[in-house]
Amino acid sequence: MIADILLTKDVNTISTSDTTDVCIIGAGVIGLSSAWRLSNAGFRVSIIDPAIGHGASWVAAGMIAPVTEAYYGEESLLKLSLVSADSWPDFAEELQQATSMSIQYLQSGILMVGKDADDMAVINELAEFQQSLGLQSERLSAREVHKAEPLLASDVQGGILTKVDAQVDNRLLVQALVSACNRSKVSFIHQMVREIKSVKGRVERLLLQDGTEILADKVVLAAGSWSSSIQGVPSELWDLIRPVKGEILRLKVPDPLSVLSHIVRGVAKGGVIYVVPRQSREIVVGATTYEKGFDTSVQAESVYTLLRDARMLVPSVCQAQFNQAAAGFRPGTPDNAPIVGRTSIEGVFVATGHYRSGILLTPLSAMAVTELLTTGTINGAMSSFSPQRFEKH
Amino acid sequence: MIADILLTKDVNTISTSDTTDVCIIGAGVIGLSSAWRLSNAGFRVSIIDPAIGHGASWVAAGMIAPVTEAYYGEESLLKLSLVSADSWPDFAEELQQATSMSIQYLQSGILMVGKDADDMAVINELAEFQQSLGLQSERLSAREVHKAEPLLASDVQGGILTKVDAQVDNRLLVQALVSACNRSKVSFIHQMVREIKSVKGRVERLLLQDGTEILADKVVLAAGSWSSSIQGVPSELWDLIRPVKGEILRLKVPDPLSVLSHIVRGVAKGGVIYVVPRQSREIVVGATTYEKGFDTSVQAESVYTLLRDARMLVPSVCQAQFNQAAAGFRPGTPDNAPIVGRTSIEGVFVATGHYRSGILLTPLSAMAVTELLTTGTINGAMSSFSPQRFEKH
Repeated sequence: MIADILLTKDVNTISTSDTTDVCIIGAGVIGLSSAWRLSNAGFRVSIIDPAIGHGASWVAAGMIAPVTEAYYGEESLLKLSLVSADSWPDFAEELQQATSMSIQYLQSGILMVGKDADDMAVINELAEFQQSLGLQSERLSAREVHKAEPLLASDVQGGILTKVDAQVDNRLLVQALVSACNRSKVSFIHQMVREIKSVKGRVERLLLQDGTEILADKVVLAAGSWSSSIQGVPSELWDLIRPVKGEILRLKVPDPLSVLSHIVRGVAKGGVIYVVPRQSREIVVGATTYEKGFDTSVQAESVYTLLRDARMLVPSVCQAQFNQAAAGFRPGTPDNAPIVGRTSIEGVFVATGHYRSGILLTPLSAMAVTELLTTGTINGAMSSFSPQRFEKH
Repeated sequence: MIADILLTKDVNTISTSDTTDVCIIGAGVIGLSSAWRLSNAGFRVSIIDPAIGHGASWVAAGMIAPVTEAYYGEESLLKLSLVSADSWPDFAEELQQATSMSIQYLQSGILMVGKDADDMAVINELAEFQQSLGLQSERLSAREVHKAEPLLASDVQGGILTKVDAQVDNRLLVQALVSACNRSKVSFIHQMVREIKSVKGRVERLLLQDGTEILADKVVLAAGSWSSSIQGVPSELWDLIRPVKGEILRLKVPDPLSVLSHIVRGVAKGGVIYVVPRQSREIVVGATTYEKGFDTSVQAESVYTLLRDARMLVPSVCQAQFNQAAAGFRPGTPDNAPIVGRTSIEGVFVATGHYRSGILLTPLSAMAVTELLTTGTINGAMSSFSPQRFEKH
C-alpha cells in the first residue's frame, strides 16, 4: 500500500492489484477469448483496448480453413491449425451456451475453383500438395463443381472441395466473446496502452494513453499488429510483428436463393479471391495483401479487382448490395505462425502474430494462454510457438 | 390570437405567424437558396427538413453543364439552363462574400471523350447536335485531347471540349447556403412535414412528423423527390414527381499531380461515365440511373461498372482512395424540367422537379421563387415552367 502511494506522486496510478490478477492488452478475438478462459479458470481479468473487437477481428472473413490455407513450408503451422480447427465445434457450442448468442459456426466446406487453364494448373498443384500432406480434399470436374454449387459462373472449369473447412461470423464471434467476458466479470478498460513499465526485469505498471498508470502483476500482450510498437515490450518482440494490410468488401445478396452453400475461393484469370456467404445473406469478398504500414485507406483499385474477380466466379455478386469496404491489419511474423508463450520480462506473456489465422487459432490460443498462466508452461501443439523460437543461437 | 388558441385544443400548434412569413419545405439547394434570397428580400423564413442538405444536393457531383447536358427534345430546358449557368459566377461570388466560405466554383470545362469507334460515333453525333443548337463546343483530335488532359488513357480517341461548362463543390455549396441562411436569420426546423393542411383552397397549417402543427400563410414546396408524396400537396402535383436513383463514388487521389484539370465525361466501350475532379483532390465518379422507388442501397454492380468505366478513361483513378459509395434521388418530372410557380392551393408555391439540373438551376430558381412571392408572378426564363404546363386541356 505504501508503494502504491509513492507511485501516485506524479501520475494518477490506479492500483488494480485488489481487483485484477491479469491485464490483457488488446481486445481482439485472441485477447477476448483468453480473458474469458482465464476468468473462468479463476483469474480476475482486465482487458485494455481503445476499440474493443474492432481491429483485424472485425475486418476478417471468419474462415476456419486449415486445409485451404495450407502453404508450402508452413507444415508446423498446419499441424497447429488442424488441432485448433478440431476444437472449434466444442468452442462454438460452449460460447453459444454461455451467452445465448449465435456465432454462426458452419461446416460449409470450401470450394476452390478455377476459370481458365492457367487457373486450373494452380488448382491442380494445390490439390496435389494437399493430398501429399494427407489432407482431406476432393477434386471435382466442371460438372461436379456446378452440381455442388449452382451459383458458380458457367465457365468455371473445376475445383477442389474441402469439406472440413468451416466458417464463423467473425463479428458475431467478437460480440459473443465480449458478452461472455461481461458475464464472467472481466473488466474492460477503453484505453490505449502507451508503455509496459518494468523494474529489474519484472513488469510493474502499464501506462495508458490518458496518463493513468495501472499496477500490473501479470500481463498478456495480445495487441495484434501493434504488439511490437508499444513502448517497453520485451526486446525479443522488437520488429518481430508487422502489419499486413488486407481489404475486404461486405455485400448483401437480395434473397436467400442467392446465398452460396459453400465458401467459394478461386483463381479467376490469375486473380486470387474468396467469397464467404453468411446465413444472414451477407457475403464477404476478400482479400488484398499489402505491406505498407498502418495506412487504413481502401484503394479504389482493390474495390474494383475484388468485385471483378468475385463476379467472374459468382455472377450473382452483381445483384448484391454494396455495404462496406474496409481495411484491417493482420499481425505478420517471420514464419507466418503465431507467437504464444512467456517472454524475457517476468510477468509478461504474449499471444499475438496470428497473421491470417486469428479466428482459426482462437480456441487453441485461449487454451494455451490459460494453461501458461495456470501451470507456468504450455504443453501440446502450441508449445513450439513461443517467442524463443526466433532467438539467434 | 383566438383562432390560435382554438387550434391548440387537440394538437400542439405552434403559431409561427408572429415570426414567419414563409415556410419552405425541403432544405436542399433549391429550398436553401430560396430561403436565403427571400430572407434578404425582407421575408421572415422558416425551412423545414429532417436532414438539412442531405438529399440529392449532397450526393450530386456539382456539374454546371448546360452544354454537355443538352439532350434531344429538351430545348426549352436548355435555354433555362444557359440563363442559370450565366448567373452562376455572380451567385457564387455573392454567396462566398456573404459567408466567407469557398464553394469552389470553377470554370474547369468538360472534356467529353470516347474510347473506341462506336464511342466516337456517339461523341460525334453529340458534337453535331451541340453545334446545330449554336452551343460553344470544340472537337478535339486524339492528339489535342491528350494535350489538353495528359491524365487520359492513352487509347482515348478524341473528344469534345466544352469550355463554358463548370462545376461547384456541391457539399461546400450546401454548407455555405446553410451558413448564409443562418446569417440571414432563417429558422431551421429539423422535422419531416407529414401534411399540408388547407381550408377552402387556402393553406392554413403544416403537420409535422412529431404531431406538432404550425400555422402557415405562405408555403414553398421544395422537397425534391418527396414533393408528390406529402399528404395534402396540390392535386396537380400528384404522381408528377418521381425519384430517379443515382449512385456515385467519392474517391481521393493521392497527390495534386493526379488531379485532372477538366471534368472528364465519356463513353467507355459503351459505358457512360463522368469523373469530376475537385481542388481538394476528391474525385466524384458517377452516375447510374434507375427508377426503382426510394431504395437507398448501392448495388455492387454499380460500384464495379463505375470504377471499370472511370479507369478506362482515367487510369490514375486506380490509385485513388475509396471513400464512399452513395445513392441519391433526383426529382424527375414528365418533361425532365423543373416545376416552379403558384399552385391550385392559395399560399402554396412550388420549386421542385429539378431532376439532373438542381445545382445548375439553383441561382435562377431562388430568384424566381423570390420574384413570385414578392410580385405574385414570374417573368423571364422560368415563367414557362409552372405546374400548369401539365394541365390537360
